Amino acid sequence: MSSLLIKNVFHNGETTDVFIKNKIFCRIEPGLDPSLADQVIDGTDKAIIPPFYNGHTHSPMTLLRGYADDIPLFEWLNDYIWPMEKVMTAEDIYNGSRLALYEMIRSGTIFFNDMYWQQDQTIRAVEEMGLKAAIGVTFMDGLGKKYIEANFDYLDAHLRPETLPEGITLTVAPHAIYTVSEALLRRCAAYAAEHNLVFHIHLSETKQEVEDCVKAHGMTPVRWLEQIGALEPQVVAAHVIHVDEEELAILASRDVTLVHNPVSNMKLCSGVFHFQKAQEAGCRYILGTDGCSSNNNLDMREEMKVAALVAKSRYKDLELLPASTVFKMATKWGAECFGLNSGKIAVGKAADALLLDLNNERMIPCYNLISNCVYSADNSVIDTVICNGRLLMENHKVPGGAEIVALAKESSIKMLERLKKG
Amino acid sequence: MSSLLIKNVFHNGETTDVFIKNKIFCRIEPGLDPSLADQVIDGTDKAIIPPFYNGHTHSPMTLLRGYADDIPLFEWLNDYIWPMEKVMTAEDIYNGSRLALYEMIRSGTIFFNDMYWQQDQTIRAVEEMGLKAAIGVTFMDGLGKKYIEANFDYLDAHLRPETLPEGITLTVAPHAIYTVSEALLRRCAAYAAEHNLVFHIHLSETKQEVEDCVKAHGMTPVRWLEQIGALEPQVVAAHVIHVDEEELAILASRDVTLVHNPVSNMKLCSGVFHFQKAQEAGCRYILGTDGCSSNNNLDMREEMKVAALVAKSRYKDLELLPASTVFKMATKWGAECFGLNSGKIAVGKAADALLLDLNNERMIPCYNLISNCVYSADNSVIDTVICNGRLLMENHKVPGGAEIVALAKESSIKMLERLKKG
Repeated sequence: MSSLLIKNVFHNGETTDVFIKNKIFCRIEPGLDPSLADQVIDGTDKAIIPPFYNGHTHSPMTLLRGYADDIPLFEWLNDYIWPMEKVMTAEDIYNGSRLALYEMIRSGTIFFNDMYWQQDQTIRAVEEMGLKAAIGVTFMDGLGKKYIEANFDYLDAHLRPETLPEGITLTVAPHAIYTVSEALLRRCAAYAAEHNLVFHIHLSETKQEVEDCVKAHGMTPVRWLEQIGALEPQVVAAHVIHVDEEELAILASRDVTLVHNPVSNMKLCSGVFHFQKAQEAGCRYILGTDGCSSNNNLDMREEMKVAALVAKSRYKDLELLPASTVFKMATKWGAECFGLNSGKIAVGKAADALLLDLNNERMIPCYNLISNCVYSADNSVIDTVICNGRLLMENHKVPGGAEIVALAKESSIKMLERLKKG
Repeated sequence: MSSLLIKNVFHNGETTDVFIKNKIFCRIEPGLDPSLADQVIDGTDKAIIPPFYNGHTHSPMTLLRGYADDIPLFEWLNDYIWPMEKVMTAEDIYNGSRLALYEMIRSGTIFFNDMYWQQDQTIRAVEEMGLKAAIGVTFMDGLGKKYIEANFDYLDAHLRPETLPEGITLTVAPHAIYTVSEALLRRCAAYAAEHNLVFHIHLSETKQEVEDCVKAHGMTPVRWLEQIGALEPQVVAAHVIHVDEEELAILASRDVTLVHNPVSNMKLCSGVFHFQKAQEAGCRYILGTDGCSSNNNLDMREEMKVAALVAKSRYKDLELLPASTVFKMATKWGAECFGLNSGKIAVGKAADALLLDLNNERMIPCYNLISNCVYSADNSVIDTVICNGRLLMENHKVPGGAEIVALAKESSIKMLERLKKG
């Protein structure tokens, strides 16, 4: 394994050197000898910060980006998204995942929590491109018994870490309470709890979901999930908009991680996340982009800014969700949620990092680095992306990018042709 | 004057050639002879679209970017922004304006409607860097009588177009009703009406402004401005958040242009623009970023996305403010508001344009170009920026960028030193 030394880089208000070996930050101190390392990077006028950890997305859906915007939800799903998903092949899912990962690297994200079908294709892309991911094995009753049993077989076959590429874990991912039966939810929860896997679900995203749940079970989704034992495993719940204070207290007591997806929630008019109440209840919360059919990108930097704006605006409190907090949601807390020893530039942590160009116009003046990252930056400030000590992007260049883009373009054209043929 | 031919570029769903001469789009048709032009650009896999027209900003305030975020409004102004503004020299304003213009070019903006002090410095920057602008001559009573008379003298001296650099017009810019007396507002309005200049003002931005106006004059700001004759000239009003339906009807009948600044409004908790009601009332509306102390950037692309998200989310209507409309707010309608014969790629229009890289990952797939621009893009999709037929950025490069950044950095460091010295 090669070692990497970053000389004279700006870190926590000072200029220092950062030495990476065996995928770990080994030493962070000034004046380190360049001969220590196989590769030396000049960090002059650059800052080192943690990269982003995307708490909830559907990576292959990059191929549905912009396919059907600004139209009502039911029409959007029925007439556009679902028919298009039916003509997606395994190759499309692979190409769409690679496009997603390329976009993630270019915008500073090195980890994502995914939920989609044919997870093998996404895993292949992650392994090839050197990121980290929690990959959902996704359950929906509508996919049929055979598919469900195949999913559990897949999980059984990959319980030992050595059966998966480095940096990849699986999650048990029942899609939502309105697409997964009580029996299957119970089975998923028991499986996740038994095998210590994350249970990843969409939760209380729309008013409709809550109303239907109350009608069917006499209680709201969070209460119902608790009753059927589905909050027993480590739960990562996406959206969590339509909840009351008692439900937030339940989620806090069960140590559920809420994934805030402000762009998707606004674009689809799902509602507004109760940031202040979630904070008061002592909930864990992180940040996610959702998929490209409802965002339409995977840009965690943009998501941080929108999250901060929405929280302030909703509660008329401009001190709420400051840059420092939303930055933690997108970095440290995201990494922690998935058991990663990273999300912070510190000795002993996994060597995940971004180098930011301090001479980029969006970083001038630099009164507050994190404030600039959250409120001012665009992606051109990101010069270098490091994951597990490996350079995924250096000087704005990601190897193989043109080919990834060309294949994804080809997939999207073929999908449209298949759709038109019917 | 040189001529420019863009070969094989994607325009309105087709591949064509675009020929620019004498700063105007002369011919838009396929198969044009390359020998026609002094310079030929290969437009293969690129799309040509109008650039952005920023409806309201304070360009020199880039030097206050990130200086004081996430703190209460009164403290923000009193303890941070105002003291810092006091130590800004003419050179700082020039350097700050140049940083702003560099940022604008890099994010596809070629025109801005500005309001700040020492407008000569900003004008100098605009002339040197080749953009267009409406530059406010800014009035506030607090600046003193001498300053006010000097402003009117300045306006008098620049009434004929030949007294200003090409592409620059002046506006009469009383800051707001709470910083400008009735007498001065009346005088500014009469002056603007007489000389056919735009009257640029902050209007009904905060609840406090409205309450104070009602207390002082027995009516809300819009009604009061109408009563004192301040809606007689061509008015461009920034923010316009705290207004009722009757006020929107007054603004529509007076053909006032409302500038929506969603990011600033959210970040400062000013309130939410009544997009739907403004639309129903038949108002004109365009888009602006506000200044870097409340945004913290000048990114019209980001502003478009946030504007669309906020409108949908506020009114729970995901068809509201679609990509096509918000794109017009940022381009065509912005140009029209300031009497520019541009904002559209069409023969006879001024040759303002962006070339977008259709092989950029954010533009893949390309089911809908404008939807990708609004909801998916980051600035790396912008390959080339053209203003009045002149290439301001080509292949992502703006000549002189490094020097502009270095001087702005130096200014910001010196300002802080001066502030500390007291």
